[in-house]
Amino acid sequence: MILKFLSIINFKNHENTSLKFDENINCIVGPNGVGKTNLLDSIHYLSFSKSYFNSIESFNIKEKENYFMIKGEFFNQEKQELDINCSYTNKKKVLKFNNKKYDKLSNHIGKIPLIIITPIDSNLINGSGEIRRKFIDKFLSQIDSSYLESLLFYNKTLNQRNALLKNSHNTNDYIDLLNTYDDSLAEFGTQIFNKRRDYISSIIKTVKKYYNIISNDREDIDVEYYSELQNNSFKNLLKENLQKDLVLQFTSSGIHRDDFIFKMKETNIKKTGSQGQQKSFLISLKLANFDLLYTKTNEKPILLLDDVFDKLDDNRVEQIMTILNSDNFGQIFITDTSFNRINSVMSTAKISCKYFLYNFNGTYHEKT
Amino acid sequence: MILKFLSIINFKNHENTSLKFDENINCIVGPNGVGKTNLLDSIHYLSFSKSYFNSIESFNIKEKENYFMIKGEFFNQEKQELDINCSYTNKKKVLKFNNKKYDKLSNHIGKIPLIIITPIDSNLINGSGEIRRKFIDKFLSQIDSSYLESLLFYNKTLNQRNALLKNSHNTNDYIDLLNTYDDSLAEFGTQIFNKRRDYISSIIKTVKKYYNIISNDREDIDVEYYSELQNNSFKNLLKENLQKDLVLQFTSSGIHRDDFIFKMKETNIKKTGSQGQQKSFLISLKLANFDLLYTKTNEKPILLLDDVFDKLDDNRVEQIMTILNSDNFGQIFITDTSFNRINSVMSTAKISCKYFLYNFNGTYHEKT
Repeated sequence: MILKFLSIINFKNHENTSLKFDENINCIVGPNGVGKTNLLDSIHYLSFSKSYFNSIESFNIKEKENYFMIKGEFFNQEKQELDINCSYTNKKKVLKFNNKKYDKLSNHIGKIPLIIITPIDSNLINGSGEIRRKFIDKFLSQIDSSYLESLLFYNKTLNQRNALLKNSHNTNDYIDLLNTYDDSLAEFGTQIFNKRRDYISSIIKTVKKYYNIISNDREDIDVEYYSELQNNSFKNLLKENLQKDLVLQFTSSGIHRDDFIFKMKETNIKKTGSQGQQKSFLISLKLANFDLLYTKTNEKPILLLDDVFDKLDDNRVEQIMTILNSDNFGQIFITDTSFNRINSVMSTAKISCKYFLYNFNGTYHEKT
Repeated sequence: MILKFLSIINFKNHENTSLKFDENINCIVGPNGVGKTNLLDSIHYLSFSKSYFNSIESFNIKEKENYFMIKGEFFNQEKQELDINCSYTNKKKVLKFNNKKYDKLSNHIGKIPLIIITPIDSNLINGSGEIRRKFIDKFLSQIDSSYLESLLFYNKTLNQRNALLKNSHNTNDYIDLLNTYDDSLAEFGTQIFNKRRDYISSIIKTVKKYYNIISNDREDIDVEYYSELQNNSFKNLLKENLQKDLVLQFTSSGIHRDDFIFKMKETNIKKTGSQGQQKSFLISLKLANFDLLYTKTNEKPILLLDDVFDKLDDNRVEQIMTILNSDNFGQIFITDTSFNRINSVMSTAKISCKYFLYNFNGTYHEKT
């Protein structure tokens, strides 16, 4: 997938930005605060109809304005043009694909395959299991719309079951309803469990491959999937935990409690990994997702790299550039604060790219 | 305060490290994973008898070992030698000051003034109010041992009051005990409130000064203290909220709910600031703490800078080096992955320093 042209109005600190991109590598370079990350985020927005950074939409509107608009002209590998237009006014979001409005925003997910790597991904290592679940759910929804549907059904049913547990003082009256919910949870939950399990086992080799390249075979990493469904059927779990659930007034078991443990040397990488090793792990994980997304969609995803060289030593940076310079990758967007650094990285790797060089005042000039 | 000599055994990935430092600037340079951050953390440990990164002590012991030991030889501006020795074996921590064991670890706080700046400080902006409160509590404890005492008393009383609210079904029986707790909370809580308020008003000018230098006067920042005690006495607050507390079964008001809002352009910098601007803010805040700590202790604190140049543009890096090169600062430790980068930063700023250049295998050589 290639983004040819991007236009942004009133999105974060961009008042009115229009850019024509190179089909290969685009480097957005400039001092702090000119809006490099926000530019990547606007591209992410066109793919997911969501900011990667702010879930509160009003935060995405430029100060003192009351709407924002992002427009992108993409073309896929069959050279078909895809126009995406997204606007947010009066608390209402409108998303158009080739000028046709979507009924449901979720129908858009997967149309523009995209992978983003940014410094806040360190949350995936340091944050709660919920953050890891959401990350994997978001990715699997991109390659499998039935996954997204199962997830939406599961969460809806879970909320209903929890409401029932909370409000019913004599559960015998509601036993039929509870059984119906349990059937639904078990059906959708088991589908989700299977897909998460298959996903982990299908990416693990690729994550390790990339990590070995980046680290010069220096460390051993792994990903493990923790789920109560590994050793029990969902139906059984719900049955066994019913008395506990009635006391707690919520559903204490299920795939909404799953976790994914990222490991180095058989321990959580949160404990054993340095900042650079953790970052290398996250890049490997994201690049493995890239490969899987490419295989599933048969379309090279757009790759957004925000401050990707931070914390990494020169050797790891070089190895990453070797990976990115292969035929496997298509259009890439990279942000950096230092032209000298990125220019030297590109020269060393013998990669040609288009630079957008920003000044302090937000103006820029292009350079190839 | 100067750290002359450091010896580490089995701390994180350091098996046996002994280093002799320069009195001015020491640069720890090397590839990812050799233990640069862990080295700074061992110095932090000697000052606070705690890791900056892991509160679970067993995580600080090297893999497959059962203890760690850190030893530092410091001297203060009166040229007195201070030996700090900290060991952790069998879940027991022993801290010695000039070979004398402390009865209470808290008595050590403030003896070795130290400020650390690291990438995980971004939690202060993106995390909860609790993280900001803990940061400010930790800093104020360093300059004022009576602050630490008030805080320990306050938290103890708060826990007792909450236990009472949770377990007593008829509070009339316990009204006397509750009154005693309320008197204590009000006394210590008001002391803490006053000191937090004075602290914010005393640093705000310095934070702004440093931010203006770093950003070349490009952005306006501010810090605001939010506390219910701004408009009400603590006694009144507890009285007004008693019925609510009885229902909730915990103390819903007080200085344990305070927050500190970091602002740019009159909005939370979390919303309006780029990663580089947020980092500049955090550096300014920490350097303001440095100044205050220096004033209060009459001793130049040790300054630990972990990956301080990440995310910052060349101009900001230059401005920071100009600040650090002034007489105000003493011994500084800096980590970086790139010798070329840090060497060029130091040369531009005309600063001489001692380099510890690490290899992949954990060996290093010195260079001045």
